[in-house]
Amino acid sequence: MSKVKAITTDAPTGGAVYGDFELPDPEHYSAKLKTIYNGICGTDRGMVAGALPFAYNPEGYKRLVLGHEALAQVVEIEKNEFGIRSGDYVVPIVRRPGKCVNCRIGRMDNCTDGDKHEAGITGMHGFMREYFYDTPENLVKVQDNSILDVAVLAEPLKNVEKAFEVFNKISERSIFLNDFGTYEDKKAVIIGTGSEAFLYSFFARDYGFDTILTNRHPIPDQKTVMVDKSGVEFYDYTKDMDKILEGGIDLLIDTSGHPGTIFQFIRKLNHNGITILFGTNGKAPATDVDGADIDYLIENNITLMGSVDGAREHYFKALEHLRNWRHNYGDIMKDLITKKIPPSDVEIFSNKPGDEIKTIIDWSKA
Amino acid sequence: MSKVKAITTDAPTGGAVYGDFELPDPEHYSAKLKTIYNGICGTDRGMVAGALPFAYNPEGYKRLVLGHEALAQVVEIEKNEFGIRSGDYVVPIVRRPGKCVNCRIGRMDNCTDGDKHEAGITGMHGFMREYFYDTPENLVKVQDNSILDVAVLAEPLKNVEKAFEVFNKISERSIFLNDFGTYEDKKAVIIGTGSEAFLYSFFARDYGFDTILTNRHPIPDQKTVMVDKSGVEFYDYTKDMDKILEGGIDLLIDTSGHPGTIFQFIRKLNHNGITILFGTNGKAPATDVDGADIDYLIENNITLMGSVDGAREHYFKALEHLRNWRHNYGDIMKDLITKKIPPSDVEIFSNKPGDEIKTIIDWSKA
Amino acid sequence: MSKVKAITTDAPTGGAVYGDFELPDPEHYSAKLKTIYNGICGTDRGMVAGALPFAYNPEGYKRLVLGHEALAQVVEIEKNEFGIRSGDYVVPIVRRPGKCVNCRIGRMDNCTDGDKHEAGITGMHGFMREYFYDTPENLVKVQDNSILDVAVLAEPLKNVEKAFEVFNKISERSIFLNDFGTYEDKKAVIIGTGSEAFLYSFFARDYGFDTILTNRHPIPDQKTVMVDKSGVEFYDYTKDMDKILEGGIDLLIDTSGHPGTIFQFIRKLNHNGITILFGTNGKAPATDVDGADIDYLIENNITLMGSVDGAREHYFKALEHLRNWRHNYGDIMKDLITKKIPPSDVEIFSNKPGDEIKTIIDWSKA
Amino acid sequence: MSKVKAITTDAPTGGAVYGDFELPDPEHYSAKLKTIYNGICGTDRGMVAGALPFAYNPEGYKRLVLGHEALAQVVEIEKNEFGIRSGDYVVPIVRRPGKCVNCRIGRMDNCTDGDKHEAGITGMHGFMREYFYDTPENLVKVQDNSILDVAVLAEPLKNVEKAFEVFNKISERSIFLNDFGTYEDKKAVIIGTGSEAFLYSFFARDYGFDTILTNRHPIPDQKTVMVDKSGVEFYDYTKDMDKILEGGIDLLIDTSGHPGTIFQFIRKLNHNGITILFGTNGKAPATDVDGADIDYLIENNITLMGSVDGAREHYFKALEHLRNWRHNYGDIMKDLITKKIPPSDVEIFSNKPGDEIKTIIDWSKA
Repeated sequence: MSKVKAITTDAPTGGAVYGDFELPDPEHYSAKLKTIYNGICGTDRGMVAGALPFAYNPEGYKRLVLGHEALAQVVEIEKNEFGIRSGDYVVPIVRRPGKCVNCRIGRMDNCTDGDKHEAGITGMHGFMREYFYDTPENLVKVQDNSILDVAVLAEPLKNVEKAFEVFNKISERSIFLNDFGTYEDKKAVIIGTGSEAFLYSFFARDYGFDTILTNRHPIPDQKTVMVDKSGVEFYDYTKDMDKILEGGIDLLIDTSGHPGTIFQFIRKLNHNGITILFGTNGKAPATDVDGADIDYLIENNITLMGSVDGAREHYFKALEHLRNWRHNYGDIMKDLITKKIPPSDVEIFSNKPGDEIKTIIDWSKA
Repeated sequence: MSKVKAITTDAPTGGAVYGDFELPDPEHYSAKLKTIYNGICGTDRGMVAGALPFAYNPEGYKRLVLGHEALAQVVEIEKNEFGIRSGDYVVPIVRRPGKCVNCRIGRMDNCTDGDKHEAGITGMHGFMREYFYDTPENLVKVQDNSILDVAVLAEPLKNVEKAFEVFNKISERSIFLNDFGTYEDKKAVIIGTGSEAFLYSFFARDYGFDTILTNRHPIPDQKTVMVDKSGVEFYDYTKDMDKILEGGIDLLIDTSGHPGTIFQFIRKLNHNGITILFGTNGKAPATDVDGADIDYLIENNITLMGSVDGAREHYFKALEHLRNWRHNYGDIMKDLITKKIPPSDVEIFSNKPGDEIKTIIDWSKA
Repeated sequence: MSKVKAITTDAPTGGAVYGDFELPDPEHYSAKLKTIYNGICGTDRGMVAGALPFAYNPEGYKRLVLGHEALAQVVEIEKNEFGIRSGDYVVPIVRRPGKCVNCRIGRMDNCTDGDKHEAGITGMHGFMREYFYDTPENLVKVQDNSILDVAVLAEPLKNVEKAFEVFNKISERSIFLNDFGTYEDKKAVIIGTGSEAFLYSFFARDYGFDTILTNRHPIPDQKTVMVDKSGVEFYDYTKDMDKILEGGIDLLIDTSGHPGTIFQFIRKLNHNGITILFGTNGKAPATDVDGADIDYLIENNITLMGSVDGAREHYFKALEHLRNWRHNYGDIMKDLITKKIPPSDVEIFSNKPGDEIKTIIDWSKA
Repeated sequence: MSKVKAITTDAPTGGAVYGDFELPDPEHYSAKLKTIYNGICGTDRGMVAGALPFAYNPEGYKRLVLGHEALAQVVEIEKNEFGIRSGDYVVPIVRRPGKCVNCRIGRMDNCTDGDKHEAGITGMHGFMREYFYDTPENLVKVQDNSILDVAVLAEPLKNVEKAFEVFNKISERSIFLNDFGTYEDKKAVIIGTGSEAFLYSFFARDYGFDTILTNRHPIPDQKTVMVDKSGVEFYDYTKDMDKILEGGIDLLIDTSGHPGTIFQFIRKLNHNGITILFGTNGKAPATDVDGADIDYLIENNITLMGSVDGAREHYFKALEHLRNWRHNYGDIMKDLITKKIPPSDVEIFSNKPGDEIKTIIDWSKA
C-alpha cells in the first residue's frame, strides 16, 4: 500500500477531501503517470453535492478518487505501444469496457448494457491524484506539446466529437445540406455559454453553419471577445429571440439541460432539423409538451438525439481540433481556462466562480 | 369543363359533400384513371371537422376534392412508361414536388421548404372522384392482381416503409443488434391498435423483433385473432405494463400522438433505444417533461425521430410487403379492411365505426 | 465414439467417400439434428478435386465431413432459445467465429484475421452426415414449412443477401437512383446462369432493376421458362451484346469468376456503376487490364466489390425471400433444384449433370 | 469584346499559346476576379500534348483557355453572398452542373450523365488568364490569408477530400477499425511521390494510419525531408517490398495509374481492404489479372473504388486542411510548390522539371 495525494469523495453521498489516500501498489503495471492538470466539470460538482445517485465507490473502497478530465505525463512505460514513450503527455480515457457488443469493439460510449465503468464516477478511481497507473490503450498521446496549456480540454471536447459523429449519421436521413452541397446558410443555435457550448460553437462554425450562441442573460465582455474572434454570434434570447429565429434553426444544440428552453427552440426547427441533447440538469423543472409539439416533430421530419461520452477515436480528433483551433483562434482557446487552482482548494467544487468557463486543478501547485 | 362525381370539402373550414363537381378538361394528359377504392384516414376526418389549419383549396377553387389513399385503374395512357399499360391497377402518389434539394431527387417526403403539394390536402385535388388524370411517375403499378383487395393499403403502409428507412439509418449510430447480429430478443413496442399500428407490427416482426402492440383498453376478439395469427403480442398497458416492460424497450413506435403515453414508454427505453413518432393528435393534452427526462435521453444515447410521408420507392416496397403478407397471413390482411361503403356515405367522416380498422370507399357502389 | 453415415474427404488432397465415419459422442449438447438435404456447390466439387488449397481437416482428424449447405430437423433440444423447438426445421450456419472485431459482433462473414472456421471446408466437420450436434445461435429456423422443398437454398442465397447489403452501403457514395428516387430504368446485368445467378436476378428484379442474365451460350428451354416467368431477360452475349449494353450497365454482378468476361462488361458501366464480384474460378485464364481501364474506373466513379459469405441475419432474410418467391414465382423456385440424389452417389462431385442448376442430396434415400 | 492575356490550347488537338485572347464582355456579372496563381497538373500537360480526346473547346470558340487550378482575388462583386467581399482571395470551382440528380444537389463530381462542364478542360474556358468572371456559388473563400502561398493546392486537394468521403462510406461495409475503434496499427500504402501522393499521405496520417509512400526508385533529399517531418515513411518498392508488406495493407491508394503496380499491391491487401484508384495514365501498359486475383478480392471482401473530382464542400475542407497543415508541418507545405513561373513560359507544359512536385504560374510575373 502507498499513500498518494488525492481528492476523494464518498459516492454517492458526496463531500470532497484533499489529502493522503491509501491505494495498493500494483503487482505489475504497463504505465505510471504523473497528473499535470485536472478539469472540473458539472459532474464533479454534482458528485460532491451528493446529487448524482448513479455514482458509486470502487468495490472494496469506502471512498472514490474524483476526476475524469486530465492531462498526465508518462513517468514509466513497459513497452512502446500506440507510439507512447516515457515523457510523453497523454489524456487518459474515462470509460472502461464491459462485455456488450459495443464495448467489445472499443465503443464503450455506446455501451448496451450499462456494464462499463467511468473513472472518477462509477466504481473506478479517477485522476485527481498525484500519479496513477494505466494501460496504453487507455491513453491518448498529445502529438504537439505547444498545446499542453489546452490539452486538458480534450476530455470535454471528445463528447462534442462523438455528438457530431452521430449528427453526421442522422443528417443522412434526408439531404440536410443546401443547394450547393454545403452547410453555408444553414443555422446552428447553441443554448448555453459554458465551455462545452463554446466547443460546440467552434465545431459548428468549422462545418460552415451560421452559428449562434444564446443564453437567458447577457455575457461578460471576456466572452463577447471570444464570440467575436471566433466568428460566431451571441444573442440574449430573452431580448433578441427574433434575431435568433430568423430563417429558422437547422441544428439545435442544448448544453443547458433545461426542458422549457429546449422545447421553446425545438418549436422553431426547420424541416429535417436535428437537436443534439447534451447538457444535463436532473433538477431542471418540467415543461409542457403537447400534441401539437409531437405533431411538429413528425410533420417536419425532426430528430432529437441524446448523446453521451466519446470513444478513443474522439479523443484523437479532439486533440487535433485543439491543435488547429489553438493556432487559428490563438488566445481564445487559452481563455476558455479561466482559473488554475491548487488541488487543496476543494471548496471550488461547491463555489463555482461567477466568471468561470473552465477551472483547472494544477498539480504543480500541490 | 366536365362534371365529375366527387367528395369535396372547403379547406380548412371543413364539411364533406358528395355530388357533381365541375373540373376543367385537361388540354393534354398522359393517363386517365378510374378510381376503384379510397381509404379513409384520420387526416380526412380532421379536414372534414375543420381541425387541420394547414389544409387549403387549390388556387382558383372554392372547394377541394378530398382523398389521398387510392387504388385506381388506368383507362387510357399515352405511352408505356414505367411499365404501366391501359387496364393496369395503380396507386397514385400523394405528394408532388416543389423545387427544394429533396424534391429535386424525388424525395418530396423530405421536402426542405414546405413547398410541395399533397393530393386531397394542400392545394391539389384528391382522389375521391370517379376519375382523374395523372402522369406515370406519380403512379405505382400493382404487379400482382391477387392483392387488389388490400392494395389500397399501400398508401398508409408507404409511411411505415419510410419510417423504417429512417430507423435503419439512425440505428447505425451504434451497434443496435444483438451479439449474433440480428434483431432477435430485441423488443419493439407499438402504441395503438389501428390500421397503422398493425402495419408497423407486421414490419417489426419481419425484422425479428419481439413485437408488442399496446393500448389503454382491451381489444375486440377480431383483433385478438389478428394479433395471434401474426405472431405479435397485445397487452393493455393499464393492466399489464410489467409484461410490456420486461427487458426494456429497444424500439418504440407511437401511433397515438398522445404525449403522456409516449413519454411514459420513452422512460423505459434501453440504451441506444429509438422512438419513431408517427401518430398525430394535435389536440392531445400536454404532459410534463422534466430535467430527469432529458438526462435519460442523453445518458442512454436515445433518439426520437419524427417521420412523415414516403416516396415512390416506399410505395413499391409497400405493395411488395402487401403481396407477401397477403400470402403469409392470409385473411388477416383482408380483415384490416373492416367496411366498404358507397361514396355517398359522407357521414362516415364524422362517425367513425366503433370496430373500424380501415374503412374503404368503393366506387363500384357509386 | 459412434459411427455415423457421412460423406468425407481428405482436405485439401481431395476425394469423396460415403460410409460409416467415427466421431466422438459429445459430453454435452444443446441440440441434435437430423440432416434432411444437402446442397452441392462448386466449393464441394473443388474440395473433392483437391483444387482448394485453403481447405483443411479438423484438428486431430485425418478426414473432413463435407457439406456446408443443409436443411436439418431438430431431434432434441435442451432449451427453447431463439424460438427453436424439437421438430423444427432449421438451416445451420456455415462460418463459426474467431476473436476479431467482426467475429465478436456476429459478423464472421467479415472476419478480419481469417481465424474463423467453415463447416465442411476449413477445420470443422460439415453437414453431409445423418445427424450432427449444434448450438441454437448457429441454427436458423424455417418459419413456414410450405417451403421445405426449397429451404436448402437459404445457404447460397444468404451470400446474395450479404452482397446486396454491401451494395446498399456502397451505392450511397452518390445518388445511384433515378430522378424519382427508384431503381426503375436502372440496369442490372448478371453474368452466369447457374443457381446463384438466378437468385441474384430475382433479387435485382425485386429492387426494380431492368434485369438481364447473360452467358456465352444459349440456355436450355427449362431456363428460358424460368427467365420469362420471373420477369428478367436473357441474352447470349456472344450474339446479342448490343441488346445487353443498350443504355449501359448500372449494376454488374459476376458469378463466373472469369476475368476476361468481367472486364468486358466493366468497360460498359455507367457513371457511379457498381460491380459485385461473387463467382470464383481460381483457374480462369488471365485478361489484360490496362491504363485506360483504370482511367475508366476513376473518371466514372466506379466501385468493384468482392463479397463472400453472409451472417445469421442474412440466413433469416434468405428464408424470407424464399418464402415470398415460392409464392410469387411458384414452380420456378422448385425448378432451381434439378435433381435429388442419395448420399451414396458420390460420383456427383466429379460429374456435374449437364442440365444442373442445383443438385441436392436427399438423406431419406440413404 | 475585350482582349485578355491568356494561355490557350485547341482542344483536343493540343498546343499552348500565351498571348492576347479575345473574349466577349459579359452583359452582366456577379463577380470579376483577378488571377493570382494557377497550378499545373498532368491534365494540363495531357491536353497540350493532345492526348486527352475528351477535351473540347467551348461552343463557338476555336480555342480553349487552359487552367482548372487557381487562386484568384475578387476585384468587384455585386452583392455579399456566401460571405465573399471585394478583395477576398478565392478558389474557383472546376466542374459546373448539368441537370442530372447528382448535379441538381451540387454534386457535379458524381455527375450521372456526363453532362457537366469542366473549366479549362471540357467546353468551358479555364482560369489561365489575367481575369475572369464568375458567380459566388462557384467561388470558395480563403478564410486565412496566411496560407495564400499554398491555397492554390486546394484544387488538387479537394479530390483527396472527396476520395476519403467515399472511403468513409465504403469502410462501413464491415468494421474496418482496430479493437479500440481507431485506425492505429492499420496500414495505408500510397503508390507515387508526386504532389497528390503527398496530400494523400498527410490525410492518411491524420486518420491515424501507419502511412507509407512508395515508388519504384529512391526519392531526392528534399522529399526525404518532407517524408520525415510529416511522420510518414518512404520505401522504394523495388528494394524494400518486404518492409512495405509487413502486416499487410488495409488501405491502398494509387496515384500512378499503372495497372501492373496496382495489382502487385492489391494482392497483398488484408481482409476488408480498400483500394482508392486515383492516378490516371491512359497509356500505361496492360497487366495480367487472372482468376486467382478475382478470387482474392472476393474471399477477402475487398473493395476497389475509382474516385474523380470533388464538390464545393471538399474545397472548403481542403482549405481547412491546408491551413492546419501549414501550421503543423510549416515549410513542408510550401516545399510542395517547387517552382513559380511567369505565364509566358508555356514550354513548362511540355518539359516537366525533374524535381517538380508542383509548378505554379505566377500572374504577378506576367
